[in-house]
Amino acid sequence: MDRTDFGRIVAFTDGVMAVAITLLVLNLEVPDVRADDLDDALRELDGSFLAYVLTFALVGRFWVIHHNLFETLERFDGQLMVLNLVFLMLIALMPFGMDLVDTYPDTSIAIATFAAILSLTSLTHWTMTTHALRSDFVDTQRVRDTRRFGSIVTLGVPAVFLASVPVAFVSPVAAELMWAATIVARGPLRRLVTRLSG
Amino acid sequence: MDRTDFGRIVAFTDGVMAVAITLLVLNLEVPDVRADDLDDALRELDGSFLAYVLTFALVGRFWVIHHNLFETLERFDGQLMVLNLVFLMLIALMPFGMDLVDTYPDTSIAIATFAAILSLTSLTHWTMTTHALRSDFVDTQRVRDTRRFGSIVTLGVPAVFLASVPVAFVSPVAAELMWAATIVARGPLRRLVTRLSG
Amino acid sequence: MDRTDFGRIVAFTDGVMAVAITLLVLNLEVPDVRADDLDDALRELDGSFLAYVLTFALVGRFWVIHHNLFETLERFDGQLMVLNLVFLMLIALMPFGMDLVDTYPDTSIAIATFAAILSLTSLTHWTMTTHALRSDFVDTQRVRDTRRFGSIVTLGVPAVFLASVPVAFVSPVAAELMWAATIVARGPLRRLVTRLSG
Amino acid sequence: MDRTDFGRIVAFTDGVMAVAITLLVLNLEVPDVRADDLDDALRELDGSFLAYVLTFALVGRFWVIHHNLFETLERFDGQLMVLNLVFLMLIALMPFGMDLVDTYPDTSIAIATFAAILSLTSLTHWTMTTHALRSDFVDTQRVRDTRRFGSIVTLGVPAVFLASVPVAFVSPVAAELMWAATIVARGPLRRLVTRLSG
Repeated sequence: MDRTDFGRIVAFTDGVMAVAITLLVLNLEVPDVRADDLDDALRELDGSFLAYVLTFALVGRFWVIHHNLFETLERFDGQLMVLNLVFLMLIALMPFGMDLVDTYPDTSIAIATFAAILSLTSLTHWTMTTHALRSDFVDTQRVRDTRRFGSIVTLGVPAVFLASVPVAFVSPVAAELMWAATIVARGPLRRLVTRLSG
Repeated sequence: MDRTDFGRIVAFTDGVMAVAITLLVLNLEVPDVRADDLDDALRELDGSFLAYVLTFALVGRFWVIHHNLFETLERFDGQLMVLNLVFLMLIALMPFGMDLVDTYPDTSIAIATFAAILSLTSLTHWTMTTHALRSDFVDTQRVRDTRRFGSIVTLGVPAVFLASVPVAFVSPVAAELMWAATIVARGPLRRLVTRLSG
Repeated sequence: MDRTDFGRIVAFTDGVMAVAITLLVLNLEVPDVRADDLDDALRELDGSFLAYVLTFALVGRFWVIHHNLFETLERFDGQLMVLNLVFLMLIALMPFGMDLVDTYPDTSIAIATFAAILSLTSLTHWTMTTHALRSDFVDTQRVRDTRRFGSIVTLGVPAVFLASVPVAFVSPVAAELMWAATIVARGPLRRLVTRLSG
Repeated sequence: MDRTDFGRIVAFTDGVMAVAITLLVLNLEVPDVRADDLDDALRELDGSFLAYVLTFALVGRFWVIHHNLFETLERFDGQLMVLNLVFLMLIALMPFGMDLVDTYPDTSIAIATFAAILSLTSLTHWTMTTHALRSDFVDTQRVRDTRRFGSIVTLGVPAVFLASVPVAFVSPVAAELMWAATIVARGPLRRLVTRLSG
């Protein structure tokens, strides 16, 4: 498996992520009401739109960090390929996760289940990063960057997702806000880490 | 995020747009009637076919202008990548938009909602163009072309989509004709702008 | 539009065709029966499997001829891009066409409708070929090959699809056999044309 | 067909496999129960999740072996392209196969049908491998590797899938364990073959 061509893995990964992120829209169902009531029915879709935007942003963020990791790699092995397939198996679950959260917005177990999927996805990516670092797959020019984010920021994100599992049982909304934070916090965190390690 | 590889962004973007444009067909449902009545039932699908052709052409046009912008870029930053993800989030809504317009062809709020989505998509693309120009991401050989279209034509299109929102409340058909005009008008407009600025 | 990058058009085209060909499977529905009756229910799916195989082969053939044309091109223009989008709009209809033929296997109008879609798709591809030849887009080394197939074989295929529209009203099965013939006949026809023009 | 560009075949193949593997998730349906019962309903989805993971891993494995074969190829012909389309036609059936197994987990004919699809897919890939070897399409540097796996391991896998067809009538679970074994056994088998032929 060590002789697998790099470009094709990336292309397959992008394909799966592009399909998964676009399938999210299938969860937005056009209301089946009388024309006069469409106005109200569309307003009631607000929660679904929010779930769509949040999940799209989460998958988009996963795509960005996967992208950032893989462009620093110079080689890889079968184990990284297996980890990447596990990562994709979790990414492909996102339309299910969004549907769950959208159908049961106030039910803790629904939110906790999606939180667990997000946590596993994030953890798998972190494992890929540390495996790549340990195996010296990362371009030496960039290893400092990758190590820095591999340790602090990247592990911080699965931790936040993991923490949101119990939080979902107290407040579903708070759990979702924690997910949103992982998207928004990327930029500021990176600047903070860069300054601290500068 | 500044070290993200360009080709992969384009590949991911093309993937999302290819999936979104192909999912449109799922809105064309094979009629569930007796074999004898299929003839009439297919004729009644005419409106749906029209909605399919119009939405396909709109997404196709967005793909062409995205393509035209990105091939002039030499660099990009995290902000452009975020704008691109927002653009894709709106593109991925197109199957929902077509379904809405196809299910409620004579309901103003349905047409206005799709008009709003188209307007936002177009505005996001315009923002990407101006951001790229301001940040000097555009190949200097081509900056004159891009600037010309960045200012006049490209802003004209979101303006037409935005104007179609109130128009939908007067006449849904008129709003749809305005959308169709943005597709057909591209060629002539480009020639006009080129002659005026020549 | 003349400055559009070639590779991206091909990638987008392949994306749409890959999605369309894979969506065909959604028409194969797992029977909803008692476990004891699954045996019989699966046997009754035979017709659907046949429709799947036939449509998959038809789209696969379209992909092959599109591929063969585009790899001889050295340049292209906006008109070819518009023709290509029309071609893709028809390709994306294939899951609908298969569903129609699968749901109404003995209804002439269903078969005739799919025949019309196939005919239009084939004709659009033929128009692309002749437009590319007339505009000198084809690599001079290969222009003889392309011209040969552009004139005789390629126009023969839309003619067969077009002829299958009226045939469908006499015998749906005969029309479907004509479609199948266009797939199988490719190799022998090519050899015949090569020998005649040799 | 001999002049078909290699990269585009691979891209189209990856596209179909990426879509097929991501469509698997559509078989995981969010339960339609009262919020209080969601906990139990999700627990009952365990079997579906297992079917998802197993099918995802099977398609992932097919992608890996396709990948491994194609990166050793230096040329190909029309016959290999046709075989590749047959392979893709079978891969695109995987969402149907998973749905079947997931809906009728204890019904032998359901398991046997999916086993037959897996067997055909595997056999088609083996035929591609031997055809490529016989036609001298494989890079001479790598022909020894490919021949080794082309003969022993690769034929072993369709044999296991084929054997699982009758096994499914005795024990559905045993058949599924045989499929899982083909995924896990890859690494150890490769090491064994390498040592024996070393």
